[in-house]
Amino acid sequence: MTSDPHIPVAISARHVHLTRKSIDRLFGEGHELHVHAMLSQPGQFAAEETVTLVGPNGLLPHVRIVGPVRSADQVEISRSDEYTLGLDAPVRLSGELDQTPGILIQGPLGQMRLDHGVVLARRHIHMSPAEAEALQVFDHEIVSVAIQNGDRDVVYGDVVVRVASDYRLELHLDTDEGNAAGLHSGDQALLIAPTPGRARLQRRP
Amino acid sequence: MTSDPHIPVAISARHVHLTRKSIDRLFGEGHELHVHAMLSQPGQFAAEETVTLVGPNGLLPHVRIVGPVRSADQVEISRSDEYTLGLDAPVRLSGELDQTPGILIQGPLGQMRLDHGVVLARRHIHMSPAEAEALQVFDHEIVSVAIQNGDRDVVYGDVVVRVASDYRLELHLDTDEGNAAGLHSGDQALLIAPTPGRARLQRRP
Repeated sequence: MTSDPHIPVAISARHVHLTRKSIDRLFGEGHELHVHAMLSQPGQFAAEETVTLVGPNGLLPHVRIVGPVRSADQVEISRSDEYTLGLDAPVRLSGELDQTPGILIQGPLGQMRLDHGVVLARRHIHMSPAEAEALQVFDHEIVSVAIQNGDRDVVYGDVVVRVASDYRLELHLDTDEGNAAGLHSGDQALLIAPTPGRARLQRRP
Repeated sequence: MTSDPHIPVAISARHVHLTRKSIDRLFGEGHELHVHAMLSQPGQFAAEETVTLVGPNGLLPHVRIVGPVRSADQVEISRSDEYTLGLDAPVRLSGELDQTPGILIQGPLGQMRLDHGVVLARRHIHMSPAEAEALQVFDHEIVSVAIQNGDRDVVYGDVVVRVASDYRLELHLDTDEGNAAGLHSGDQALLIAPTPGRARLQRRP
C-alpha cells in the first residue's frame, strides 16, 4: 500500500551549524544557544544567536544558527547568496564538506575563518523508515517532486530521500528553489512515483 | 518536421522599463538612454542608466533600465527582491499590469512614485513565427521546459510561448528560477513535447 504522496514543504533560509569550539570562539567560552523557534525535525531549532558571513565580495548579516551543537561547522547558503558573498559553493548533502569553500564568520565576541564548509543544500526529503516504506522509496534514493500552485508549476528532480528514525516527512528547499516555485513554508509537494532504473545518490567520502 | 527542441536560456536580472515622461523626470528633460549592452532580442538593450527602487521595507540600488523607451512603466523583480523591498507582486506577462503594486523610483535628477507596474515576470519563450512552426507550438501556448545540469534538474511548467516576427528563440527566466536550476546565461533548456489538451494562456485586460 502506498500512502498519500503529498509532502509538507519547508523553505530553509541561509543558516549556520556550529561546533562547541566555534560557539566558544564567536559567543564566548561555554555559551549556550538560546531557542528562537523549534523546527519540525525533532530536536532541531533556530537559535536566537546570529552571525555575519563575510565573503570576498560582500557580507550577509543576521544569519541564524541552527542548533543543537554539531560535530562540524557548516554554512548553508543559496545561490543568490553566493553572488552577494562572492563564493562558488557546490550543491551538497549536509555533512559532505570535502572540496567546499571556506568563509569568515563574525560573532559578537570574536571571528573565525572556516577553511571549508560552505554548501548549497542539495534538495532532500526527510522521512522515517515507516514513511519511506509507505511511500515505497529508500534512503539516498533520488526522486522528483511536483509543485503545483497555478502560475509557477515546477518539477524538481535530483531530490535525495533521507531516512532516519528521528526524521519527520518534509521536503527541504532553499529560498531560490522556494521562490522559483512560488512556494511558502507549509505548502505541499507531490512525490512523483519512482521510475524503473531507480537511482541512488553516490555518497561522497 | 520538428526542429531541435534545445532553447538558449537568458537569465533576466531585475530591471525597469520606462516611458519618455519618466526618463525626463528621473534623468532630465530629453535625456537619451545610453547603450550598456545589446540584448539578444532585436533592438532591446541594457542601458548604462540605473535607478534605485524603494519599497516599504528596503531598497534596491543600481537597477538597470532596459530600453528602448516604452509606452508604460514596468518594474520586473524576483521574489527574492520582493522580500527585500517588502512588496507582493503577482506573476505576469510583460504589459499585463492591472492590479499590480506600485513603487518609488529614484533617479539622479528626480524621483517618481508608480501607482502600479511591479511584476514578477512570467517565464516565457520568445520565438519567431518560423521557429514556432518548427517547434509545433503557438503564440500564448503554455509549455514546459526541462533543464538538466547534473545536480539541480528541473522541469518548469507554466512557460508561455510568445511569437513575434522580431523575436529570436530564447527562454527567459528570472534570477530565482535560474538559481534554482543551477543555470547560467547561455545554457540550454529542452522544450517538452506539448501534450493533448494544450493550454493557452488566458490574456488579461
